[in-house]
Amino acid sequence: MQLTGTFLDEITHDIPSQNWGAREWARDFDAMKAVGIDTVILIRAGYRDRAVFDSEVLSDARDMMPAYDDLVDLFLREAERCGMDFWFGTYDAGTFWDEGDYRHEVDINKPFCAEVAEKYGDREAFAGWYISHEINAYDDGMLNVYEELSDHLRELVDVPILMSPYMKGVKQFGDEALGFDEHVREWSTAFERLEGLVDVVAFQDGNVPLTELPRYLAANRELAAAHGIESWGNVETFDRDVRIKFPPIDFRKLRYKIEQAAEAGLDKLITFEFSHFLSPNADHPAARALHRRYREWIDVDKSPQAAEPSVEDRSSITQS
Amino acid sequence: MQLTGTFLDEITHDIPSQNWGAREWARDFDAMKAVGIDTVILIRAGYRDRAVFDSEVLSDARDMMPAYDDLVDLFLREAERCGMDFWFGTYDAGTFWDEGDYRHEVDINKPFCAEVAEKYGDREAFAGWYISHEINAYDDGMLNVYEELSDHLRELVDVPILMSPYMKGVKQFGDEALGFDEHVREWSTAFERLEGLVDVVAFQDGNVPLTELPRYLAANRELAAAHGIESWGNVETFDRDVRIKFPPIDFRKLRYKIEQAAEAGLDKLITFEFSHFLSPNADHPAARALHRRYREWIDVDKSPQAAEPSVEDRSSITQS
Amino acid sequence: MQLTGTFLDEITHDIPSQNWGAREWARDFDAMKAVGIDTVILIRAGYRDRAVFDSEVLSDARDMMPAYDDLVDLFLREAERCGMDFWFGTYDAGTFWDEGDYRHEVDINKPFCAEVAEKYGDREAFAGWYISHEINAYDDGMLNVYEELSDHLRELVDVPILMSPYMKGVKQFGDEALGFDEHVREWSTAFERLEGLVDVVAFQDGNVPLTELPRYLAANRELAAAHGIESWGNVETFDRDVRIKFPPIDFRKLRYKIEQAAEAGLDKLITFEFSHFLSPNADHPAARALHRRYREWIDVDKSPQAAEPSVEDRSSITQS
Repeated sequence: MQLTGTFLDEITHDIPSQNWGAREWARDFDAMKAVGIDTVILIRAGYRDRAVFDSEVLSDARDMMPAYDDLVDLFLREAERCGMDFWFGTYDAGTFWDEGDYRHEVDINKPFCAEVAEKYGDREAFAGWYISHEINAYDDGMLNVYEELSDHLRELVDVPILMSPYMKGVKQFGDEALGFDEHVREWSTAFERLEGLVDVVAFQDGNVPLTELPRYLAANRELAAAHGIESWGNVETFDRDVRIKFPPIDFRKLRYKIEQAAEAGLDKLITFEFSHFLSPNADHPAARALHRRYREWIDVDKSPQAAEPSVEDRSSITQS
Repeated sequence: MQLTGTFLDEITHDIPSQNWGAREWARDFDAMKAVGIDTVILIRAGYRDRAVFDSEVLSDARDMMPAYDDLVDLFLREAERCGMDFWFGTYDAGTFWDEGDYRHEVDINKPFCAEVAEKYGDREAFAGWYISHEINAYDDGMLNVYEELSDHLRELVDVPILMSPYMKGVKQFGDEALGFDEHVREWSTAFERLEGLVDVVAFQDGNVPLTELPRYLAANRELAAAHGIESWGNVETFDRDVRIKFPPIDFRKLRYKIEQAAEAGLDKLITFEFSHFLSPNADHPAARALHRRYREWIDVDKSPQAAEPSVEDRSSITQS
Repeated sequence: MQLTGTFLDEITHDIPSQNWGAREWARDFDAMKAVGIDTVILIRAGYRDRAVFDSEVLSDARDMMPAYDDLVDLFLREAERCGMDFWFGTYDAGTFWDEGDYRHEVDINKPFCAEVAEKYGDREAFAGWYISHEINAYDDGMLNVYEELSDHLRELVDVPILMSPYMKGVKQFGDEALGFDEHVREWSTAFERLEGLVDVVAFQDGNVPLTELPRYLAANRELAAAHGIESWGNVETFDRDVRIKFPPIDFRKLRYKIEQAAEAGLDKLITFEFSHFLSPNADHPAARALHRRYREWIDVDKSPQAAEPSVEDRSSITQS
């Protein structure tokens, strides 16, 4: 089982920018294709005062920074060139995190996604919506967002809807983490409301101890399946166990997580995310080495699609 | 409007060292010159037990680490070779931050700067003093430092005096930040005392939300002008919005800040700082990419002074 | 006086992984040899649920992550190829840190080290044990671990035993740091119990202010000598003074610490650690530059052993 999808981090939030332009992005899509990525997911269209294109809806609603470039157009063009599916992540106004105000998140995303649908909805690669608001347990306010956006998004462009929640695990929450049983109870209730609203759920896999991951993966898949929701895995390629937030993950952990996801019968594996943490073009040398380890492991060089690699492997150790 | 000045971080404080020797510094001065830098400012001559040269005054006053090399001489030589102005930043003993003791900061800097003037004051590139103690609002103790050092410095070497305060904004101070009106009141009072003491003020521009930056830039320029003080901008090239302290800034933010500084009518733009965050030679690959974005934007390759670049652009994507 | 030993960080704890495979490790052992490293010390055999090889003892005792590769075998092979001594660091179950339970640390390490001795004890490079549990003062529980493991380890393989404590200094402990006199009192008592248990002590040197380091180095060496224990220095090559935890150290600090260690009459200098912080192959460019500065300083290129360097110096500035 391989990673076949990745988020695209458009840099409006908390991961450092690599300051890539069109050339660098094109090179990285080549690298993604060379290791079998067929799906790219925009992690979000914007966050607070920053967005991936100059949206009229957002600019009318609040002070916005100029976008300068249209990243949605760039990402769609690259996805089309490489034969990939592109999923569009909604805007996050930040008001739910600040004040618990889910209402505004719905009210701004409805016209904003209409603008998106009009501009990009008929593009060949436009293959899915991703509701970018993340939850880690049953959350009434946020489930209202899912409920109110779901039908609206399908009416705009009738494609599947993805969500990627996290787990309220000890690696992120310490003493306030949910135990396994609580986690199951919470998500049982959450999936009851999510049934029919989302088509695919891809749990982030980095919040619980690695040796406990298998039972979480299995439980999550079962809960989702009981409500007709497909399960992908969001295999994080960054490391949550070190002092720096966040470097590329140790390959041994990545391999273990992929093996466990296969064991749990997940339908597809995506990652957050290729370009910073797993790419031969990434800033961090450890990401380039992770790419080498990953390619050795998936033996991509012997598979037909990689016979003539479209990207020069910049990560060879004599060059990096 | 372009960046035409940069601080030089001599690594006595909190930015990680790039461990550059004379060759690497020479290469970086070439790179600065190629993008139009004509002014370099030593961020400070020393901090607590470390300094940029082995000063007799400092060694007599306290335990000091050996300097091994004379960075002031190195920086002056490079500035002279590249036709740049060099501004000298004063020593920070740390006693004001520890105990509110401004007296010692004055008492140690007076003989120390006399030593500096004697050693380097007649060098061709020696073009200014920079009082390195930073303030973010009216601060009686620190303004005493400015008051007591100003005349003294001018008597030693009669060149302009620069300061580079920051703003007590929400990005750094959260709930304890000053509102816009408070900021104006504080700096109104501060500039009354600063009149005649400093010639140029270069506010750091990274402490307030980007969309509020324009009114702060305009207000600061007006307040300074009312007291005969020239306004430069200190356009930070590091990013304050991410978890890592600190990576190179996202180019979109840099461009926005430069555009707003031009809009506000500032006289000159300097940055903290080229060598870590904007240089084609910087450790951080994102700095090298930022350099590419910045060069594309200022179109330096078409300007006459860059027709025959004196530095090989190591940041081209096939090499980095 | 040069660094002649380095820890090997196997990445089971808190330093980001460089994701090296066998080729990259081989290249780095070449680089170590080229600068005179003759001793490598595995920092620990495992930590909590991760270990450097798939140990039957550990797997029987608790849930363990798969190791995938056998790093002990790899490190021994490389040490043998390069004519180096290899010291083996014990396993840390984490129970002492969590619950003060030293008993379990002893009980798991006894059979685990027996397994190690059987698998690797007769390897040519196997030259020492390193008890990896770190202390910074007299600590009754931990000294029990030393006491109970020491004889056991010598019976398994009769080689010297190393420890590498740290100092409870202000750079790490602020107001709770020990003063110099307290430090001496604590370690006086500690060494009374350590006499006969360990053969070599290598104090970490980064926890006290640099200008106070000399008297600590001298005191530590005297205290150890009074109990027949040899003194090495653990010269940290990472920087504790900056915001990022942790980048390569500024060369000036490294040079100062080595000079002070020579002054104090230490027998040998090791470092934590070469591969991340001082290697021409390290991820961090500042480590590659540190390598250049260090080589210039030790003038290795003129020494006979480096006449025909076995490793291409990838850190030359035209390539890095």
